[in-house]
Order: sequence, then C-alpha cells, then structure tokens
Amino acid sequence: MAVDPASLIIDLPDYPVPGVVFKDITPVLADAEALAAVVDGIAGRFAGRGVTKVIGAEARGFIVGAPVAVALGAGFVPARKPGKLPRDTYAATYELEYGSDALEIHRDALTPDDVVLIVDDLVATGGTVRALVKLVEDTGAQLAGMGFFLELAFLNPRAAIAEVTDAEVFSLHAVE
Amino acid sequence: MAVDPASLIIDLPDYPVPGVVFKDITPVLADAEALAAVVDGIAGRFAGRGVTKVIGAEARGFIVGAPVAVALGAGFVPARKPGKLPRDTYAATYELEYGSDALEIHRDALTPDDVVLIVDDLVATGGTVRALVKLVEDTGAQLAGMGFFLELAFLNPRAAIAEVTDAEVFSLHAVE
Repeated sequence: MAVDPASLIIDLPDYPVPGVVFKDITPVLADAEALAAVVDGIAGRFAGRGVTKVIGAEARGFIVGAPVAVALGAGFVPARKPGKLPRDTYAATYELEYGSDALEIHRDALTPDDVVLIVDDLVATGGTVRALVKLVEDTGAQLAGMGFFLELAFLNPRAAIAEVTDAEVFSLHAVE
Repeated sequence: MAVDPASLIIDLPDYPVPGVVFKDITPVLADAEALAAVVDGIAGRFAGRGVTKVIGAEARGFIVGAPVAVALGAGFVPARKPGKLPRDTYAATYELEYGSDALEIHRDALTPDDVVLIVDDLVATGGTVRALVKLVEDTGAQLAGMGFFLELAFLNPRAAIAEVTDAEVFSLHAVE
C-alpha cells in the first residue's frame, strides 16, 4: 500500500484565528506518491464522463485542479481573484470560513458545450464551491461534479452545496 | 501535428499599463491539447534527471508546475505570497516587471537531498525566478534547472538568471 495522503496533513490549532484548526496540506503536495494519489483519486472518479474542462479557484485550487485536468485530458480554467484576469469576466462573491472574497473567470473560458469538473484541495463551508457553481452556470456549461482531497464534513459543506446544485460531490478524505 | 500552444496566446496591448503587451495564456491552459503539450514539453526536457520536487510561484506558477511535478513523479512545493504559509518559512523579495513582491516556502519543504526544478508559465525579467533560486539555495537543495512555457526574451531574463545560477534555463516558446 502506498502512502495515505491524509496521514501527511499537519493540524495547526488556533490558526489563523483562535478556535480554528488549520489543515496544512503542503506536506501532501510535496510528497510525490501522495500528490499522485490525490490526483489519480479525483481523476479516476470522474474518468469516462466526458469532462472537457476542470475549474479551480486561486490559489490552492490550481495545485490539484491543473494535474487533474491533464489526467482527464481536459483543459484548465483558473477562477481568479478580482482584477487578475485581463479580459471580460463573470464574477461571483462568496463567504469564506473567515472573511469574504470574490472569484472571476473569463467569459469565453467555458461554453455550453463544455462539461466541467470543479476541483479544490479542500472544501470547508462550501462558499468557494458555490461561487464556482455560479460561474459555471453563468457560461451555460454543464457541471459534471466536484472533487476534493479533503472535506471538513463538520462544517457541513454538502448541505450548502445542495442548495445550489445536485451535481455529485466527491472527496477523498473527510474529517468528521 | 497537434495544436501549437503559442498560437493560442492572446496579446493585450497597454495592459496593465501603457507600453506593456500583456500575454494572456489562459486560452493555452483551457485547451486540453495545448495544456498537455506544455506540461509534456517541460517534463520531457527534465525527465531522467532525478528531479524530486518542482517549485512554482503563486499563483500562475502553480498551474503549470503541479502537473509537471506529477508527470516527473515528483512532489510540488508552492512558493506563496507572504502570510499564506502557516509554518516557519524562508522568504525572498523580488522585483516584478511592474512593482515588487515577496515569496515564501516552508523551511522543511526542501532538504539537501532534493533535486529541484523551477517551473513557471512565463519568464519576463527573471525576478521571480531569482527569488525561487534563493529559496532553493536557502534549503541546501540542488537546483536541476528551470522550465517555462513562454520566455519574454526581449526582457533578457537569461542574463538576470545567469547572475545567480548556472542551472539550465529551458523555455518552450520565446518572444524576441
């Protein structure tokens, strides 16, 4: 058995604010076997579903999303913080676990012919995902589902996501 | 012959400031064939050199760097903007084409046993790369080289990089 990626996560209590346990997944990314297992795990789940594009949110969503796109033979669409994309965009605001932010994609990044997979390293409250779902819908593209390495199930992201889409939610590892 | 990734770049004159031609590579990333060609092109150049880690700079360096890491069977180390990494870091400041910034990596992200490849989508003045070279050196790791999709050769990044390292500089496409 290869390394279990979840075993490499470092828990940091009271970071960035008291009461929050930050999940540092950089040791997972830095481990070649673990990184490959995360990418293969998500890509394997959605293989054969005709995914044409993977969308990931700046910045950590790029790290898992881009290799999943390559593994699926799909393109990658970066959802970026406001002001980072140079051409006409769609925008969506969202609440974070701590704070709020917005994401943008180029208006021509997806078309109604695209089948889109949302990928992120971690899903917490589901706020980022809801913004990504809105951006995909703005373009008229079809949502194939969403795949995450780590799900903070105790924050109940699936309920928040179910309010906006019935697309499949898949995570490799859940923290109850 | 597959799609030429460089043919998909969109030039945006006078963005973000007058006199600068911004190279929008998001259409390259969004095209499955082009993205695969970029990743395979960089990974193929450095295959068989014992690369254990790929390092990429936030945020666009993550998009090309992470799949190159997976293709090489290496881990991925994100170099992040200040305050984003939760544990002890090394830091390096650098000049951008327009402005200045800093990058950090976790101190334990690389060890002297690591053979490191720097990857980015684009090299312009070489400032980001010089910061990454310093971060790799801070850890005592060995630098295998650096690979880019697009080199703005008219900004002469190779001269700037040669001031700090004699490691190989490889780019898939150069704009003279």
